[in-house]
Amino acid sequence: MPYVNIKITREGATKEQKAELIEGVTRLLKDVLGKNPATTFVTIDEVDTDNWGVGGIPVTELRKQQK
Amino acid sequence: MPYVNIKITREGATKEQKAELIEGVTRLLKDVLGKNPATTFVTIDEVDTDNWGVGGIPVTELRKQQK
Amino acid sequence: MPYVNIKITREGATKEQKAELIEGVTRLLKDVLGKNPATTFVTIDEVDTDNWGVGGIPVTELRKQQK
Amino acid sequence: MPYVNIKITREGATKEQKAELIEGVTRLLKDVLGKNPATTFVTIDEVDTDNWGVGGIPVTELRKQQK
Amino acid sequence: MPYVNIKITREGATKEQKAELIEGVTRLLKDVLGKNPATTFVTIDEVDTDNWGVGGIPVTELRKQQK
Amino acid sequence: MPYVNIKITREGATKEQKAELIEGVTRLLKDVLGKNPATTFVTIDEVDTDNWGVGGIPVTELRKQQK
Repeated sequence: MPYVNIKITREGATKEQKAELIEGVTRLLKDVLGKNPATTFVTIDEVDTDNWGVGGIPVTELRKQQK
Repeated sequence: MPYVNIKITREGATKEQKAELIEGVTRLLKDVLGKNPATTFVTIDEVDTDNWGVGGIPVTELRKQQK
Repeated sequence: MPYVNIKITREGATKEQKAELIEGVTRLLKDVLGKNPATTFVTIDEVDTDNWGVGGIPVTELRKQQK
Repeated sequence: MPYVNIKITREGATKEQKAELIEGVTRLLKDVLGKNPATTFVTIDEVDTDNWGVGGIPVTELRKQQK
Repeated sequence: MPYVNIKITREGATKEQKAELIEGVTRLLKDVLGKNPATTFVTIDEVDTDNWGVGGIPVTELRKQQK
Repeated sequence: MPYVNIKITREGATKEQKAELIEGVTRLLKDVLGKNPATTFVTIDEVDTDNWGVGGIPVTELRKQQK
């Protein structure tokens, strides 16, 4: 009965990509630890780039610098 | 000083229902462990059904199959 | 399919008390939102009092002051 | 490689204030524990006042009482 | 810069299995969303079976019933 | 009423250093957002280096490579 939480920045992940993440993580837990998919939960949090910092700087700023 | 986080799918929980959850969890912690309600925090995350998977499938898909 | 995480300080909650929390939260989600207990997960984190702060002070210190 | 999650009520924190939180927490982890800012992540969750309870009451209600 | 938290019951996952989970989740995020492994964090929480409930019952009890 | 969770690897942070983190984060939230320290909670999770991965590799391995 695993519970997995994935946090990514909100930068356009599609419904299909999120379904792939859910499917892939669930299969990984089955393959590695024999966990039952029926009781494996996966949640995805999409976080605004203003609300995620790396190196002390919001990702919004990092993206501007990368351009 | 407990901290409780409740994650549910975003499927129409009302303001009143959320208030009931907050009240009920806070009372439970008082009744079972004697925790002071004044320092009990409860947060509720409502997660889009595209972003929650069970059995490797997004809840959005599960809901369609259940119809 | 709710997921609930309860954080309390590690100060001697018994196995029976933790079972009561699990049972009570699961019933609350059924009563208030009609959630199926079979797919309701509850996890409890017991946090050392050195690792929990309120008012800028570790709970270890608060407990000494309360004596 | 610390990971810090800050939860606050959604009550108008500005982009600049959130950048200050990110910068301040990252520096604190460097100053206290020598952690490398480049691998320090900070995420901020802004939670609706209907979805945050203290003392068994939603913050939305507390704010009305405080007026 | 994804952050992934995996919660499993503490029931004997080996160091090697945990390394496989870390490797697999990191690769999944690269394959599906193009995320850079260097800034992908994965943490694993192993939760005592007394502290994890499903269906309103601690996993410790469920395991006894399954025998 | 902010809630802050700090996750670091379990590599010898002292009680005093953890108290400094608690004090520093609480003050930061007061300085930047005017949050009341009395209702600011900080929790610190110390995660085993086998259970934390960066770049797809457990920190236990990274530390060996850094020697």
